[in-house]
Amino acid sequence: MRYGNTLKVLDIGIDTHQEPIVYMRADCNICRSEGFTANSRVLLIYNTNRVIATINVVDEKVLAPGSAGLSKIAMERLGVATGDSISVSYAPVVNSLGAVRKKIFGHKLSDKEIGAVIKDISAHRYTDIEIASFLSVCAGSRLDVDEIIALTQAMVACGKRLTWPGTAMVLDKHCIGGLPGNRTTPLVVSMVSAAGLTIPKTSSRAITSPAGTADTMESLTNVNLDLARIQEVVAETHACLVWGGAVNLSPADDLLIRIERALDLDGEGQLIASVLSKKIAAGSTHAVIDIPKGPTAKVRTHKDAERLASLFTQVGAACGVHIRCLITDGIQPVGEGIGPVEEARDVLAVLQRADTAPKDLRERALIIAAQLFSMADDISYPRGLIKATDILDSGKAWTQFQRIMKAQGGLKPLPEAYYQHTETARTTGVLQGIDNRRLARLAKLAGAPATAAAGLRLHKRVGETIHEGDALFTLYSDTEGERQYALAYYQQTDIFSIGETS
Amino acid sequence: MRYGNTLKVLDIGIDTHQEPIVYMRADCNICRSEGFTANSRVLLIYNTNRVIATINVVDEKVLAPGSAGLSKIAMERLGVATGDSISVSYAPVVNSLGAVRKKIFGHKLSDKEIGAVIKDISAHRYTDIEIASFLSVCAGSRLDVDEIIALTQAMVACGKRLTWPGTAMVLDKHCIGGLPGNRTTPLVVSMVSAAGLTIPKTSSRAITSPAGTADTMESLTNVNLDLARIQEVVAETHACLVWGGAVNLSPADDLLIRIERALDLDGEGQLIASVLSKKIAAGSTHAVIDIPKGPTAKVRTHKDAERLASLFTQVGAACGVHIRCLITDGIQPVGEGIGPVEEARDVLAVLQRADTAPKDLRERALIIAAQLFSMADDISYPRGLIKATDILDSGKAWTQFQRIMKAQGGLKPLPEAYYQHTETARTTGVLQGIDNRRLARLAKLAGAPATAAAGLRLHKRVGETIHEGDALFTLYSDTEGERQYALAYYQQTDIFSIGETS
Repeated sequence: MRYGNTLKVLDIGIDTHQEPIVYMRADCNICRSEGFTANSRVLLIYNTNRVIATINVVDEKVLAPGSAGLSKIAMERLGVATGDSISVSYAPVVNSLGAVRKKIFGHKLSDKEIGAVIKDISAHRYTDIEIASFLSVCAGSRLDVDEIIALTQAMVACGKRLTWPGTAMVLDKHCIGGLPGNRTTPLVVSMVSAAGLTIPKTSSRAITSPAGTADTMESLTNVNLDLARIQEVVAETHACLVWGGAVNLSPADDLLIRIERALDLDGEGQLIASVLSKKIAAGSTHAVIDIPKGPTAKVRTHKDAERLASLFTQVGAACGVHIRCLITDGIQPVGEGIGPVEEARDVLAVLQRADTAPKDLRERALIIAAQLFSMADDISYPRGLIKATDILDSGKAWTQFQRIMKAQGGLKPLPEAYYQHTETARTTGVLQGIDNRRLARLAKLAGAPATAAAGLRLHKRVGETIHEGDALFTLYSDTEGERQYALAYYQQTDIFSIGETS
Repeated sequence: MRYGNTLKVLDIGIDTHQEPIVYMRADCNICRSEGFTANSRVLLIYNTNRVIATINVVDEKVLAPGSAGLSKIAMERLGVATGDSISVSYAPVVNSLGAVRKKIFGHKLSDKEIGAVIKDISAHRYTDIEIASFLSVCAGSRLDVDEIIALTQAMVACGKRLTWPGTAMVLDKHCIGGLPGNRTTPLVVSMVSAAGLTIPKTSSRAITSPAGTADTMESLTNVNLDLARIQEVVAETHACLVWGGAVNLSPADDLLIRIERALDLDGEGQLIASVLSKKIAAGSTHAVIDIPKGPTAKVRTHKDAERLASLFTQVGAACGVHIRCLITDGIQPVGEGIGPVEEARDVLAVLQRADTAPKDLRERALIIAAQLFSMADDISYPRGLIKATDILDSGKAWTQFQRIMKAQGGLKPLPEAYYQHTETARTTGVLQGIDNRRLARLAKLAGAPATAAAGLRLHKRVGETIHEGDALFTLYSDTEGERQYALAYYQQTDIFSIGETS
């Protein structure tokens, strides 16, 4: 059924993000003879490259006859430049959409069906609305453990997989998120690798939060390392703290995450598959998963946290990874800084054992490192905790962190934000709660994570007594627009609940 | 939290269908100071008009500094022309998305929540992927009867509502589709209105089929009438056969249908709300719903058909419309023509009592008219059938059809397709089945409904004995590309199952 037609490519200079668009004239012979209209899907072919794109119909003034404009991602995926000839024909039927429809109607999907969906998504055969449909009907608790295992394995199958020859045990850690701050990863990686264990950490950038570990690390050093460089760094230091995106570990997950973010959706099965597929692809054998639980965290009840922990452990076991889950206190941010640079300041303070170092961040990192030592050395948790504390307090973790930074390209000085503004309490009482989601949104409105120095620093914690006029937090931003948005949002929103002194 | 910024509009000449896009330079002061990036959502304001649009970032060569390109739908909804100044700011948070998330997690929605979702969708506050998410989690049997009632009423609330002063009883009919041909509406409307009953029929264009009633009627007369003209036609003839889209009866439904079509999704609750909201908005008091059932029809089992019939009746009753459902034979197309013009030929043949008139189409139309007479006159079905048959056989229906056509602007001659091609049987045996969906796709590949004369005409029906070389069907198309696609599809697909003569 292929019936190609040729058009000349024009770089039309439009960035449509991940969805390829082809711009065609309404009077173009292909549009007319094929019956293509606005929002039809077509197959573009250039040599052996194939891209499915959506048509936007344009006026005659925009394009010369016989030419087709391509959006940036369409140019990139096809590997074409202005003037190249491409063939345009009907988009082939995507058979795995039958499995999506099956799931819409509430039926369980087989390994094969899930594999076909993920393969087609990673080959860019799905439109954004088709991905949105798939994610929506898999969200909630609509995937059972078999389906989550299949999803995890399908995601691993369509990306690269790292191996660490000569290393039988590869450690890893992950926090499911939902708590601003909580930047334990650089601390845990430094402690664990200071003890000679291997922990090649690949992290993500922020999805819906004001900072991901990769964002924080990027304010300190180079995180955009290719696989060869990562292997050199790990060979030298037993560790790395890099951005996972550069090594293409789970490309299907990256496509799903973009739509999840737009829908503000974080499905359980999808979350587990996303986390574990990246751990497996990174070659990890043992991992600790931090599950913060609190009224405004991602997981709100102990029951939900236990269900998630059980699923993580089962899926991990089925995929050959030892998982230990920690259900932790998620009532308020961990550490005082929120945003890439402010979180980096907290990390440095803990490593350097500064008086100002946030105690909760130090403690959380020690707990996670202790669990990893307990798994790796087969020792009790209390002994693991002693080992972690020794490494941190002796300065060995700080030395090790500096070694890793040097291997990745050196430690950079942290930038300062252009605007700093401190908000004070308008009442006296006890700080009874902090809304994590709203606080995260405040930091994002201030410009985090796109602006590394943007974000905020908390001056009070839940349980503390506050007097009118006390500093509550300092906001950091680089532009007047962001500063104004963030402060307007703060004025209109209850983030801190301050109650009567009893 | 409003913080507007002004840009000059440029009509960029791109048709992005229903999703408004604003094209902005990456170095534009608004993008920079507000942190907008590709695929951010922004609020565009011009006088009192507000449109939420998605940003596509463009190169400097595409736009002058200080200007913003708008897609056609964005220009239209804002009511702007090139050179006008618009304000651009962050898109407001759409609160009803909380209800969508609630449904994603499997919870029942209240009337108020469904009302808020539909109101926001009809105000164009949802992105396509958000609509896709909502439709996907409402599909299958995921809406209960209360939710379907709420959805129906919410759809009615956001559109126009017609009234027919002085007419206590307003009749209507609807087929849920899934069967090619089956163009009973013009026949039923002619018979019922010939008897002096009021049946102001507004129809839709094809959604996923080769022709809707509006497409077929458009090949015969003018169907694009405004409300005032419709009322004149109905006052004169008790009936009309017009396109419903022109009177904006259920604008939310139109937005949902566009995404349903792209997802090839036809959820039960959505289907009922879509049909009944349009009936209620059209002022109907009594309606017959035709539910064809067959292995390749939309509804495949008797159980599903009965469930759908029961829901239609319950939702109708809750909304004050008397509904009678008919579960009909959906094993093969009704009539011989498929595509706007070919179906019109069948309709005319039945009205004119031609020898060539398809008997099954005549019979199906008589059954539906009989049910309407039975409801309206409170008589038995057999008496209703006698009445309908009398009206058709006496020529009164044909006279009445001509009156309606004249009132709408006159009967047009039917066009002929440029290419005609007859396919013959390659084997001898009994025609045991016709795949309705594939046959519909064949007619669509030939160019229907965009090309009115495109489609096909069946020469054999299920149960008939076929000899090698007998004509099976004739394909009609206007372009060489469409003809080739359709025939290539036919070669590769089993549409007709011909079995051994027993």
